[in-house]
Amino acid sequence: MSSLPIADLILAEMDQRARAGNVPRHRRLYEAIRSAVLSRRLPVGSKLPSTRDLARDLGLSRNTVVTAFEQLLAEGYVSSRTGSGTFVADTLPEPATDELAPNRQIKNSHQDGATAPQHAPLEGTTIVNETTLSVRGRRVAEHASGHRYEIQPFVPGDDDFSVFPIKLWQRLQNKYWREARPELLDYGQNGGYLPLRRAIADYLRVSRSVRVTVDQVLITGGTQHSLDLCAQLLADAGDTAWVEDPCYWGAQRVFESRDLNLHPVLVDDEGMNPQQDDLQIQPKLIYLTPSHQYPKSVVMSLARRRLLLDIAARTSAWILEDDYDSEFRYTGRPLSSLQGLDTHDRVVYMGTFSKILYPGIKVGYMVVPPALVAPFRSALYDLQRPGQMMQQAALADFLEQGHFATHVRRIRQLYGQRRELLQRTLKPILGNAASLSKEESGLHLVIQLPPGTDDERLAQEAAEQGLHVRALSTYYIGPQKERGLVVGYAYVPTDKIAYYGRLLGNVVKAASAGRS
Amino acid sequence: MSSLPIADLILAEMDQRARAGNVPRHRRLYEAIRSAVLSRRLPVGSKLPSTRDLARDLGLSRNTVVTAFEQLLAEGYVSSRTGSGTFVADTLPEPATDELAPNRQIKNSHQDGATAPQHAPLEGTTIVNETTLSVRGRRVAEHASGHRYEIQPFVPGDDDFSVFPIKLWQRLQNKYWREARPELLDYGQNGGYLPLRRAIADYLRVSRSVRVTVDQVLITGGTQHSLDLCAQLLADAGDTAWVEDPCYWGAQRVFESRDLNLHPVLVDDEGMNPQQDDLQIQPKLIYLTPSHQYPKSVVMSLARRRLLLDIAARTSAWILEDDYDSEFRYTGRPLSSLQGLDTHDRVVYMGTFSKILYPGIKVGYMVVPPALVAPFRSALYDLQRPGQMMQQAALADFLEQGHFATHVRRIRQLYGQRRELLQRTLKPILGNAASLSKEESGLHLVIQLPPGTDDERLAQEAAEQGLHVRALSTYYIGPQKERGLVVGYAYVPTDKIAYYGRLLGNVVKAASAGRS
Repeated sequence: MSSLPIADLILAEMDQRARAGNVPRHRRLYEAIRSAVLSRRLPVGSKLPSTRDLARDLGLSRNTVVTAFEQLLAEGYVSSRTGSGTFVADTLPEPATDELAPNRQIKNSHQDGATAPQHAPLEGTTIVNETTLSVRGRRVAEHASGHRYEIQPFVPGDDDFSVFPIKLWQRLQNKYWREARPELLDYGQNGGYLPLRRAIADYLRVSRSVRVTVDQVLITGGTQHSLDLCAQLLADAGDTAWVEDPCYWGAQRVFESRDLNLHPVLVDDEGMNPQQDDLQIQPKLIYLTPSHQYPKSVVMSLARRRLLLDIAARTSAWILEDDYDSEFRYTGRPLSSLQGLDTHDRVVYMGTFSKILYPGIKVGYMVVPPALVAPFRSALYDLQRPGQMMQQAALADFLEQGHFATHVRRIRQLYGQRRELLQRTLKPILGNAASLSKEESGLHLVIQLPPGTDDERLAQEAAEQGLHVRALSTYYIGPQKERGLVVGYAYVPTDKIAYYGRLLGNVVKAASAGRS
Repeated sequence: MSSLPIADLILAEMDQRARAGNVPRHRRLYEAIRSAVLSRRLPVGSKLPSTRDLARDLGLSRNTVVTAFEQLLAEGYVSSRTGSGTFVADTLPEPATDELAPNRQIKNSHQDGATAPQHAPLEGTTIVNETTLSVRGRRVAEHASGHRYEIQPFVPGDDDFSVFPIKLWQRLQNKYWREARPELLDYGQNGGYLPLRRAIADYLRVSRSVRVTVDQVLITGGTQHSLDLCAQLLADAGDTAWVEDPCYWGAQRVFESRDLNLHPVLVDDEGMNPQQDDLQIQPKLIYLTPSHQYPKSVVMSLARRRLLLDIAARTSAWILEDDYDSEFRYTGRPLSSLQGLDTHDRVVYMGTFSKILYPGIKVGYMVVPPALVAPFRSALYDLQRPGQMMQQAALADFLEQGHFATHVRRIRQLYGQRRELLQRTLKPILGNAASLSKEESGLHLVIQLPPGTDDERLAQEAAEQGLHVRALSTYYIGPQKERGLVVGYAYVPTDKIAYYGRLLGNVVKAASAGRS
């Protein structure tokens, strides 16, 4: 018996859905029949042709048709009755309950017999198609940092990973891939690969006076991951985080995403400067960049460090010390950490390898007070199981074999050169129009502008010349905003930095002349 | 002039702090003097010996002493007056304000002159040293999954990555490390490496009938990362997430960590089964594992899929479809996704490579409705910049060159064998005492036990024999709990599975005999 009417319908579906690419025939047939069933072009209860007849009428192998039928059967689009054949099943549920669609009730579909009545498709009923994000989702979307520029001059925060010793790194990794130890393919435990935690502990103890045993070290996916864990485990929604004003926007975003209230505290020449008013708003967290305030560049004075430790001890607040680029001090040695001064175990110290090795490596670390080790390890595992243990093993070797120290020295020298060139270029051009931040460290400096300067417009003018500086005022949360341009120099090639520096200096100078 | 009294003090500090390891001498001296200053053993205003005198008295090179002094100066522990010498600075701030310590006021330390009075150290004032986590932090800690066992028989969720083609994978990665393209060392953008997104889109379209263009694909760090992004961007604190009951504990933890309320909806033979009562508690999110309910193993019927899509469309809820192991169907082909049935763009589809490749790889993906692409890409970048682009490139090749398909076929066959062996071993031993879940898929099966069985105690007895099954009841949130043992077999070597199976079967049988 010819199955032509149904075969024609199926063929039409297949043609409509024809597309390039290697979609197997049985799949195409399956999709065509499925589509016909869902749209009711093949009505409920229709008997399908036998596989042999359909194969003949569609010009397919019987195997192909059988495979498609098996899939349709398994998924419930058709049902088969032994000896009778294959029939189109009723796949539409009853619409949901009273509250949603008056006069209809929810029934358990599987209680219906094979004679369930047909139902009109969903047209005519109220479907609300709201593509709204949550409130917190919208906040993230509003503050989107925008498409990341290709590496262009003066974007603050970029480091020059073109000098990263790739061949060496590849060699270190290959050693572990060759050994193929199963534990390095598995999830990480105990806060991270032990030799790496040990190497980091040793490094921090000596270079930053961090008080640390290997157990207190946790390997994370970078600074934002570290901040996110702290915001989640040490604070509840609605709690207050004191942040420096101006403040690293990445930290702002993380804290907001955890529903914390940000209380900005102005930064002066000694760092965050809490006043009487600020003390009325007790913090749960205090976020600091004491080695090199981001973005103002100041180093937190010793007195100010001790003040904040005192505040934390009295309010039971946690200090999050973000030591993001302390390796890059061009005069003198890296400063001791604020954590090393603390005698009340209120500080979580964090650092990252992203700015020293390459951004995509996504390895950072935290040093937590002993009492927090167990809960932080749990959370690190339970909320987002750690991995990349091969990479952690290679990194441990990189540190232990002295390559890290060598590389840091090398890039410190390189960045120091670039900084000096930039300063020497800018100073004569700027004259009295602006001054430069004086701290000799980091991957950026600040061109400090007179109060009231429209630094956002200035940054825009610079951008038009291909110089992607950032306006200092855009980092401020509170109403009182200093003006300036944040200039990242680490990534600008040494043979180009004077050129770009002159361009930038002239933009600033011209604007200043325009004002006076 | 001899500096002996001070030199002796410093020497004593250095000896006290002597420890093994390569701490440079200048560092040891720096730390000793710092310690003495902080503890006031060297009083404020004391004049330090000249570097030459101190070097002589301590038996150190002058260079060493100069380096230490420079550091102390830079950090503010000492100050120098030209021609006069180096003096111990006042480093203690005033204690903080009225509210915290009566009768004291905060002053800006830098306003004090060199003659600021000494202050008593912090003893005697009220320091509260609370090491409490936040409420949500405590919840995470309470639910800690505990130390992960070394891979032992029957832990559900483990996959056998000993058969992962490591040498091939290493070769694919090395190709990119050799090329050393900078964009692969940088942060990822646009939701992930384009060729990988494309390969995933093609794969899902053909194998799972997911409706997807390459732009809708986002590469994440795994399923929990995907769930976390959804929980954050699509729901606010206090919103309700419908979850299957029983439910994958990892999803529970993520939703709780984002302050969502979990509303459990019982699972029957067709999957999640919403009732009238459930519809009173409108969900923002609906978390489903329709291909293979975790842990009960059932496949969601077509009718139930359409019901849930209908509910989502009417309530503007988002369905999160977690397709965690759909590659592992041992009879028939993988089922079509729920997402493929949706005509209202309410489904976020997610999958992972962790169970197919190796756990530490930490690569997963999401397919989001078109309207969510931009905000999800923003959030992915802004909240935790993506990396590991080298790995994404290698993975794209792994898919495109057919290695993925080959590997999946291979492990599917391997796991299918192990499943069959386990079933054949268990059935005769269990007899009527228990039944086995019938779905032929995944990395685990369920030994279904009579209502009221103490399956937790049974799991404990099995654990004593080294068999780390999990009690089914422990996955339930609501009061109505089915009883059973969740048995992961994928990782158990084929030549051992009958042995362990017999052990397990006998534990169950003995307990059953004990009950009757």
